[in-house]
Amino acid sequence: MAKDKKLVESITSMDVDFAQWYTDVVKKAELCDYASVKGCMVIKPAGYAIWENIQKELDSRFKETGVENVYMPLFIPESLLEKEKDHVEGFAPEVAWVTHGGLDPLQERLCVRPTSETLFCDFYAKDIHSYRDLPKVYNQWCSVVRWEKTTRPFLRSREFLWQEGHTAHATAEEAEERTIQMLNLYADFCEEVLAIPVVRGQKTDKEKFAGAEATYTIESLMHDGKALQSGTSHNFGDGFARAFDIQYAAKDNSLQYVHQTSWGMTTRMIGAIIMVHGDDNGLVLPPRIAPTQVVIVPVQMQKEGVLDKAFEIKAALKGFKVKVDDTDKSPGWKFSESEMRGIPVRVEIGPRDMVNNEAVLVRRDTHEKITVSLDNIAEEVEKLLDTIQHDMLEKARAHRDAHTYVATDLDSFVDTVNNKPGFVKAMWCGCQECEDKIKELTAATSRCMPFEQEQLSDKCVCCGKPATKMVYWGRAY
Amino acid sequence: MAKDKKLVESITSMDVDFAQWYTDVVKKAELCDYASVKGCMVIKPAGYAIWENIQKELDSRFKETGVENVYMPLFIPESLLEKEKDHVEGFAPEVAWVTHGGLDPLQERLCVRPTSETLFCDFYAKDIHSYRDLPKVYNQWCSVVRWEKTTRPFLRSREFLWQEGHTAHATAEEAEERTIQMLNLYADFCEEVLAIPVVRGQKTDKEKFAGAEATYTIESLMHDGKALQSGTSHNFGDGFARAFDIQYAAKDNSLQYVHQTSWGMTTRMIGAIIMVHGDDNGLVLPPRIAPTQVVIVPVQMQKEGVLDKAFEIKAALKGFKVKVDDTDKSPGWKFSESEMRGIPVRVEIGPRDMVNNEAVLVRRDTHEKITVSLDNIAEEVEKLLDTIQHDMLEKARAHRDAHTYVATDLDSFVDTVNNKPGFVKAMWCGCQECEDKIKELTAATSRCMPFEQEQLSDKCVCCGKPATKMVYWGRAY
Repeated sequence: MAKDKKLVESITSMDVDFAQWYTDVVKKAELCDYASVKGCMVIKPAGYAIWENIQKELDSRFKETGVENVYMPLFIPESLLEKEKDHVEGFAPEVAWVTHGGLDPLQERLCVRPTSETLFCDFYAKDIHSYRDLPKVYNQWCSVVRWEKTTRPFLRSREFLWQEGHTAHATAEEAEERTIQMLNLYADFCEEVLAIPVVRGQKTDKEKFAGAEATYTIESLMHDGKALQSGTSHNFGDGFARAFDIQYAAKDNSLQYVHQTSWGMTTRMIGAIIMVHGDDNGLVLPPRIAPTQVVIVPVQMQKEGVLDKAFEIKAALKGFKVKVDDTDKSPGWKFSESEMRGIPVRVEIGPRDMVNNEAVLVRRDTHEKITVSLDNIAEEVEKLLDTIQHDMLEKARAHRDAHTYVATDLDSFVDTVNNKPGFVKAMWCGCQECEDKIKELTAATSRCMPFEQEQLSDKCVCCGKPATKMVYWGRAY
Repeated sequence: MAKDKKLVESITSMDVDFAQWYTDVVKKAELCDYASVKGCMVIKPAGYAIWENIQKELDSRFKETGVENVYMPLFIPESLLEKEKDHVEGFAPEVAWVTHGGLDPLQERLCVRPTSETLFCDFYAKDIHSYRDLPKVYNQWCSVVRWEKTTRPFLRSREFLWQEGHTAHATAEEAEERTIQMLNLYADFCEEVLAIPVVRGQKTDKEKFAGAEATYTIESLMHDGKALQSGTSHNFGDGFARAFDIQYAAKDNSLQYVHQTSWGMTTRMIGAIIMVHGDDNGLVLPPRIAPTQVVIVPVQMQKEGVLDKAFEIKAALKGFKVKVDDTDKSPGWKFSESEMRGIPVRVEIGPRDMVNNEAVLVRRDTHEKITVSLDNIAEEVEKLLDTIQHDMLEKARAHRDAHTYVATDLDSFVDTVNNKPGFVKAMWCGCQECEDKIKELTAATSRCMPFEQEQLSDKCVCCGKPATKMVYWGRAY
């Protein structure tokens, strides 16, 4: 039994040291590993399978809205990156530079894309001529590089995987509509598939994307009360179009600048899944994103018929993602391992269950055990997976709501941030000085100005001047 | 009508200038475009959709054999690349080097992966301890960079997309088995899905992969008689394991080196599809890889009921990938465009067809027109797509066979290569001097030593010494 427990015992408790708990789960659930290249990660099969499911689901939702996938080059010539002033200022300090190709120095150095606005703009400038060429609703799945100083698996690494959508439209209205549409798509995906509730809103000018007119964001709350920016959607207006000269002939033959957007979601969402749903036994995966939804563990596997029955159950569960654990490990070890890996439902089947024509279903999220008849195990599993998906979202929402506070003066704001990890809702006058001051005092940043505004008071929580917006604040990953 | 034909007329005939024809098709079918970064390409929606279908089909075939997907870093530290002597010699002259991260020079320069053997080895050295950890059958989908001097869209570019499988096994036999298994998987995929017949065989030592013990290849023949290496599978033996110290404890507790393989297929297969199947009207796509299998073109679209009928037909064809072209272009333009894009079947429906309860199906590969009743159009389309898929493979095979020659002496060998583009089968003594001499004389290289050997003569076609192998030779892309 000592051996059976080893896997679990080696995890730090999340209440003792959340950061260490996170690292332990990443490692013990075999999601990713550090690479020899500082700040880069190896995404292992269990982690990559989650990313593949995220890709499959997002990609199909994208395509339903008319998105087409493309692939742009990995490299951006320095002169191209420099074309939009705000953009280059935002990204140049954190890009990797290629200076040699083969044995020869390059005439112009190339950066490894940190994001691809400039490449899409360069392409659109050549490819868009007439209103008939619009809209362009392109997306790519790729990796990007940002030379971060401190890194954490999935949350912040020098290379990460993502998708980046880049669109061009005839009118400002259409661009704004697409920006909001994609933000809502991300939000629905997070809630419906990842069981992660989000706050939808707009970034302040200080926090918006380099080069954007407006950045919209979804913000989620991790178990430790820290916020995570989970997806962003940017409206560029015609700023990039003017910098890159992307014009089209309108129906009346006048030359017009296009209006652009971009939007992205990354592998950091795997970090969000871990930190929203995980517990001291390891990962807890929502059924809709779990690479394995059901693991069947035969108990007393050596007894006649047990293993056959396990595979019979697997056959009965076709349509779900099911594995039979028929390795020579002990059942106790298998139980721990399936919990560590976050598999939503475990089916235990042994000789006694067989006599009763039953099996035991164990919920990963609540540890609840449910004895069911083998005659209708498929219906029971289906029902249970739906219940788990639903309950995980509600549990995460309840946690988020219980850790969302209101502050109407600066003292209580500082006190809340320091003593009650979570979101703080507070009014703001709209000036950056107050944002800067709050960050300096508390290390909390403005997460977003939520679409659902509330009038908590009429004064800025920081300076006391008239408030213009309610803002979600919080310390963030 | 002049306008209708413009799209087609602007393509160079393949018999006049095959290289220009290829470039024209790539451009007019909107598969890809040159990027601002020299030698890199933008893969446009029509090209990327083909790649997505290749990925989907290959990935599912991989997974059926137990392959798991992972993701390794984009960068390789110089010291890591240098660990295996042959490998670094093969790749160092053609890699891109990152020397700066943000504003600071790097302590050690990093190359952008040209292939990831060294990264997988570095990971396996840390991750493999016992025979229980074997086999590792990992794959990744990513882009790689090789600083080529001359480039052509899809066929040779500085960055391309591919998958690279990397496996580690307990025994030499198991590694060899996996190497051959993956080669056969590639061959079956090419023939069954891309309708491209291939020759399966082994590369000579001169042509094998840098660091491999044996390289297996599938070679296909393009319409112009030039060969294209279409997929390779390498057996590394324990060479990399020794260089990277990848050892495992065997059942008897002895320490053993693992045996490794790698295998890859790339976006150059899109070039192969173009050059094997295309004609003077543009691209011709095999139904199983076509992003759109059927285009429905309403004729006299303004007449009442025509457009409705077109969408009715689309609804009847559910299960296929179907588009209705309801743009305001003329039918003639739409016909040309659907041919340029290579859509396997065109359905023409107009008022007269409706009176007769009929539609006209037009095959892209043969231009044959078939009138069918609307009552059983789904069955007819299904049958026709199967026929096209079958016929395209047979046509390509007949072309390949008609352009495969035999030479038993050097004069006829040189004459054949110079005057009859295609494969030349000839006996070889096994020494590199003869390979070098043949290449110098004819620019033809040894493509492979096919698994299906024939005894054409008992003397080397070049030096006249005793022959050991029959070899396929040819000029290649």
